[in-house]
Amino acid sequence: MAQASEPVRHTGMREHNLSLVLGAIVRHGSVTRARAAELTGLTKTTVSGLVAALTEAGFVAPADARADADGPGARGERSGRGPGRPGAPVAVSGARHAGLGLAVDADGLSAFVLDLHGTARAHEVVVRDNRTRAPDAVAAELGDLARRMLDRAGAQGLTAAGLALALPGLVDRRGGDGRTVLRFAPNLGWRNVAPDALLAAHLPPLRLPPETGNEANFAALAERWSGVGAGLGDYIHVSAEVGIGAGLIIGGELFRGTHGLAGELGHCLVEPDGALCGCGSRGCLEQYASIDAMLRAAGSDVAEPTAAALLAALTAGRPTALAAVERAGRAVGAALVSAINLLDLDAVVLGGGYVPLAPWLSGPVRDALARGPGRLRGTAPHLAVSTLGRYAPARGAAGSVVRRLLADPALVI
Amino acid sequence: MAQASEPVRHTGMREHNLSLVLGAIVRHGSVTRARAAELTGLTKTTVSGLVAALTEAGFVAPADARADADGPGARGERSGRGPGRPGAPVAVSGARHAGLGLAVDADGLSAFVLDLHGTARAHEVVVRDNRTRAPDAVAAELGDLARRMLDRAGAQGLTAAGLALALPGLVDRRGGDGRTVLRFAPNLGWRNVAPDALLAAHLPPLRLPPETGNEANFAALAERWSGVGAGLGDYIHVSAEVGIGAGLIIGGELFRGTHGLAGELGHCLVEPDGALCGCGSRGCLEQYASIDAMLRAAGSDVAEPTAAALLAALTAGRPTALAAVERAGRAVGAALVSAINLLDLDAVVLGGGYVPLAPWLSGPVRDALARGPGRLRGTAPHLAVSTLGRYAPARGAAGSVVRRLLADPALVI
Ligand SMILES: [Zn+2]
Ligand SMILES: [Zn+2]
Repeated sequence: MAQASEPVRHTGMREHNLSLVLGAIVRHGSVTRARAAELTGLTKTTVSGLVAALTEAGFVAPADARADADGPGARGERSGRGPGRPGAPVAVSGARHAGLGLAVDADGLSAFVLDLHGTARAHEVVVRDNRTRAPDAVAAELGDLARRMLDRAGAQGLTAAGLALALPGLVDRRGGDGRTVLRFAPNLGWRNVAPDALLAAHLPPLRLPPETGNEANFAALAERWSGVGAGLGDYIHVSAEVGIGAGLIIGGELFRGTHGLAGELGHCLVEPDGALCGCGSRGCLEQYASIDAMLRAAGSDVAEPTAAALLAALTAGRPTALAAVERAGRAVGAALVSAINLLDLDAVVLGGGYVPLAPWLSGPVRDALARGPGRLRGTAPHLAVSTLGRYAPARGAAGSVVRRLLADPALVI
Repeated sequence: MAQASEPVRHTGMREHNLSLVLGAIVRHGSVTRARAAELTGLTKTTVSGLVAALTEAGFVAPADARADADGPGARGERSGRGPGRPGAPVAVSGARHAGLGLAVDADGLSAFVLDLHGTARAHEVVVRDNRTRAPDAVAAELGDLARRMLDRAGAQGLTAAGLALALPGLVDRRGGDGRTVLRFAPNLGWRNVAPDALLAAHLPPLRLPPETGNEANFAALAERWSGVGAGLGDYIHVSAEVGIGAGLIIGGELFRGTHGLAGELGHCLVEPDGALCGCGSRGCLEQYASIDAMLRAAGSDVAEPTAAALLAALTAGRPTALAAVERAGRAVGAALVSAINLLDLDAVVLGGGYVPLAPWLSGPVRDALARGPGRLRGTAPHLAVSTLGRYAPARGAAGSVVRRLLADPALVI
């Protein structure tokens, strides 16, 4: 509060103004230097200098070249132009900088490259059973994947300024020195792993320090930035693989919790004295509504323990499989009712492993939402199904890098 | 973001600077004008003028008079002094301004007056069964109570700048025109009541517009400001009367939710296909752990349906009553586990009607917290019991007025 009246400090002033100008361009799409001066309260001369620096650094480009900016020829075309005429509008450029998102889960690795427009420029999945692999072995393979992605980005003229890694577990920000600790990833069998050290050992160094977060949080953000979450108000994104992950979007931002541990819907209790969970509680949602739990409950109706076989059994109308998923839907609905009542949410997004099961899960979930929350608030919370699929965590991680870069371009200028 | 670089606007400048200076005095206790100038970045001359205005308006007083400020003589003594010597420290004065907090619940009305130090200056409970009374009749009686409190404050030299009202139901901020609507207060039987209109009709007009909120939220804030919540990190305050109320404190502030509906722990689901709740769901916590639910479950072990009789039965070791409260404790524990896992909370405060039952409730609640959340985060969330009793909602409401006033003294200058 006190700083608002202090004289403006010149240390960091240019960095701050670069952010201001780029922020105005990000929010307004395509603006002239005069309009950017109005929007930021800076002088036109100052803005022209900043726009020149942002152009030179590849963050913005003349708006009339924007249609070409995604193409491979855009970089060469723009670099010869300089800052351009003062009356000509500029816009964010998708031609130079990128964010690299990586994700590790029980079934493999995935990677996604986004440019500054949020456009997908490369992606890849490596299918691999990670359930019994040591962190170092996984990180080494992740390093190979990251290098392939950087090569593919480079072939399009893109440089990844940083990377973010999505992990299927409790990523705790209390690690000390601003470092994170992966406290527990039940489906990988990892405990108290330091992602920063792993990344430093196996991943190529980039300009920004790497960021690590929970996969469900990154998936929830991906829905917000480029999926069904864009128009939903406050919502919870819930997905299932071996476990259950959920991410909360409140006020347009990720709600992480003070220690970064928020959103553990999978350990909400839905059955008193129910099945013992790896977390120590009994009757956690995960014991009824993870893919593994549905497979167990579907028994011999499912030919082999895979999500594809479960889907086949449902499609064939096998009764034990149908009952298992119906049961899971009621459990998910119960946990979501608790989440909505506690957090005042407007909507729910089913993602990840729940997407192919949505035709069977949605009914019981929708029923639960309509009853209590619908009556308490006069209208039932909205239920949506993700369209981003397998890449949501890596895509959200890449988007997180892009957002960091757009918020503070001086990080790489 | 853009405003940080805009030229300072002179409209509202003095109001803003009054807030800045008073804020520095609130945070630092007792400061000289020179120190206040350092803390705010304003010149000493400007600060001296602002301190003079704040002194004249009764917000601050010479710090050496502070020990007397709560006494009836303080106002006369101070008003003759003027702004005082520049080197002499000033501090917040408890002698002139107050906040009035009011609360309506199923069993009565309560009121609390706090001065700017957060010191209790008057309080009163009116015991009354409000379960079948019309909002207008209750508001009329609330008006009488408010006038008595204003008289008692006035006799101590205090003027209440505003009032806040705590209600036992869903207070929705979507009422339009910034107005609130009490959507549903199950224990009063009120639906879609407009508190602002009721207050305008029956309460004395004060300088600030009245504020209405959920009783559980105000109780949670009261714990934060003057109870066991002060050192707890992020917590949920849960209490029981006829229903169950909970308030969330996150980052030191109340987490209201986007529509002001957050914290409905009482409608978290703890029993699949359980008892039908007034909200439309089955198996809500309220059906097992409200005082009424415990009384029903205790059956003939309890001589009459009152909290006092339940307490007597527990003290006498009556087995059905003990089992009912044990069951309630397990249900509260289950709902709290869900809340902690979703919101990343550090602690739980049992308040209101749970306080006398804490010797019987705490065991099962503590067990639930130690299992899942304790294992997931390495340490079990802390369990505390409120010391504020019956007045927590009204005290929190009064505190909310005081905080509003300290944040923006220009509201009454
Ligand atoms: Zn669990
Ligand atoms: Zn309910």
